[in-house]
Amino acid sequence: MAKPTSRMYAESGVDVGARAVALEALLTAARYRPPPSHGRPIDLPGHFAGLVRIGRETLAVTTDTVGTKVLLAEAMGRWEEVGEDLVGVNVNDLAAVGARPAGLVDTILCAESDVARFRSIGRGLGRGLRAARCALLGGETALVRELVHGIDLGATAIGFFPRGRRPITGRRVRPGDLILGVPSSGFHANGFTLIRRLLREGSVDLDRPRPEAHMPVGVELLRPTRIYSGIADALADRPEVHGFAHLSGGGVRNLARLNPSVAFTLDRWPEVPPIFSWVQSLGPISDREMFETFNMGIGFAIVVAPRGLAELRRRLARAGAGDAVEIGRAEQGRGVRVPAHDLTYEGYA
Amino acid sequence: MAKPTSRMYAESGVDVGARAVALEALLTAARYRPPPSHGRPIDLPGHFAGLVRIGRETLAVTTDTVGTKVLLAEAMGRWEEVGEDLVGVNVNDLAAVGARPAGLVDTILCAESDVARFRSIGRGLGRGLRAARCALLGGETALVRELVHGIDLGATAIGFFPRGRRPITGRRVRPGDLILGVPSSGFHANGFTLIRRLLREGSVDLDRPRPEAHMPVGVELLRPTRIYSGIADALADRPEVHGFAHLSGGGVRNLARLNPSVAFTLDRWPEVPPIFSWVQSLGPISDREMFETFNMGIGFAIVVAPRGLAELRRRLARAGAGDAVEIGRAEQGRGVRVPAHDLTYEGYA
Repeated sequence: MAKPTSRMYAESGVDVGARAVALEALLTAARYRPPPSHGRPIDLPGHFAGLVRIGRETLAVTTDTVGTKVLLAEAMGRWEEVGEDLVGVNVNDLAAVGARPAGLVDTILCAESDVARFRSIGRGLGRGLRAARCALLGGETALVRELVHGIDLGATAIGFFPRGRRPITGRRVRPGDLILGVPSSGFHANGFTLIRRLLREGSVDLDRPRPEAHMPVGVELLRPTRIYSGIADALADRPEVHGFAHLSGGGVRNLARLNPSVAFTLDRWPEVPPIFSWVQSLGPISDREMFETFNMGIGFAIVVAPRGLAELRRRLARAGAGDAVEIGRAEQGRGVRVPAHDLTYEGYA
Repeated sequence: MAKPTSRMYAESGVDVGARAVALEALLTAARYRPPPSHGRPIDLPGHFAGLVRIGRETLAVTTDTVGTKVLLAEAMGRWEEVGEDLVGVNVNDLAAVGARPAGLVDTILCAESDVARFRSIGRGLGRGLRAARCALLGGETALVRELVHGIDLGATAIGFFPRGRRPITGRRVRPGDLILGVPSSGFHANGFTLIRRLLREGSVDLDRPRPEAHMPVGVELLRPTRIYSGIADALADRPEVHGFAHLSGGGVRNLARLNPSVAFTLDRWPEVPPIFSWVQSLGPISDREMFETFNMGIGFAIVVAPRGLAELRRRLARAGAGDAVEIGRAEQGRGVRVPAHDLTYEGYA
């Protein structure tokens, strides 16, 4: 289906277009450029991380929350997974500019501070931090019963570029480059407002497995975000690597953030994992909306010059990403295409 | 009153003790120290900012929200002030370790993205960024109607130490040091759950001035946080400066975060500004709770060796803090005392 048959996500209460307009108004009003003695921001509009040059180092900064996935955690009474997600959603954006994580701060907003729940979140957080090799540098816990239902989990991550490494922005992507994809671990932590709506409409029992699965669907959906930062770190010093993309909210369209003057043709997209097809089967939702909302099985993309492929594959295997597959190539043009699903996206937004 | 006659804040729904226990459980479970190749965190437990050494630079990181002050913004239909607060609450914590702000990322959680409101927040944010000379490096705007009422404003700030400056931790504070205080601009953005409860119980009309005031009390209470980062930056390279403290949530007890082996005696605390006395008059709330919850008129403290005072005063005046006053001194002992109000606090927590 080339045209969307429904816009379920907007109907779920997430109007991405209205948010973009409001955000533009905020950014325009807030615009300010400090004197160079206060750090030199590097303009990279619409990219995965903010960059700033401080003294002799370049830093990358990302900030993200696990969104409404916490409501599924609440329903299942399981908090380790979203604790781990809190690391993944942030360090994977650092990975997309080739930065190595150096620290994370968390912000927990909650109606009450339940010890058991906080301990579970801490366990997941610790697991994520170990996977990303990242320190917890601080945090804020606000008891704001009048502001939040339950709990909100947000964080900010800071990364750096070791030994003269330069940020990988995608500007060097050119027609002929290959695109590799690293499989995701499921839905990660994006689009849960929509997923939860579909679950409700399908009257899904979260405690039972979906057909052909072996664990409760609530548990399967909670699976924490795969952490790609070690993989990116292992590749980022190779000159044949031209771009990384974290395929989180926005799905395959995230590739367009790398370079507006190249077309990303995903003509070898692997079979979509069953959990995605099953969620899609719950409601009237098009392939187009699925691919622009969810990762559809590939969580991280690597754009690489063909000559470097063999060495890259060795490094991928050593970094625990022997499961990476070729998913497409860069071509003349612009935007992102998924020919097998007859999808064309003009850009990211 | 030496003993609290009430614990209004806990009754307002903010149980600080329970939060501390839950937070400890989270931090214990999350504990992880990365290899030195991934940045070297500097242990400074309980301090205002997290510190990490990356390559040849030391960075400071703080994260904070404006809390339930947004609910007063909502009631008054004014958003610029809390937008500006979002910078202040974060860069003032950077100032407390002597770091110069280099960038901020914001996180806005909201039920809907209203353009006019976002523009107002942006204007305030811009004003704060200019005052702090700080760039906006990025942000996250999450439409999470099921998680938040209205809007939550949070941010993370990153600071650095220019030209070989070292973090100012307070470890060098010694008996005999003087304590200067920089006046606050009002309640800043702390304790608003309690303030709003007192306003409700006193049936206060937010659109009318309190006695002897000339603006609506809602507007007076919204006054944005004074930004102290330029002041701290102007002093931080002076060897006679031994410590800085941002007197936000926790009030005067924040001084105890600097050095556990010194007593901070605030025997020259200035007259408490009328807005604080008036809020206190609304409910049965002790001096003790007021001084451990609010800034009580002094938002930033500077601990300094007496020999350096004259030069420091010149620098303060140039940095726009000619209104700084001497508020006390460091002595043998521990904790924080405010003799005029007969208050003794053993420590920060």
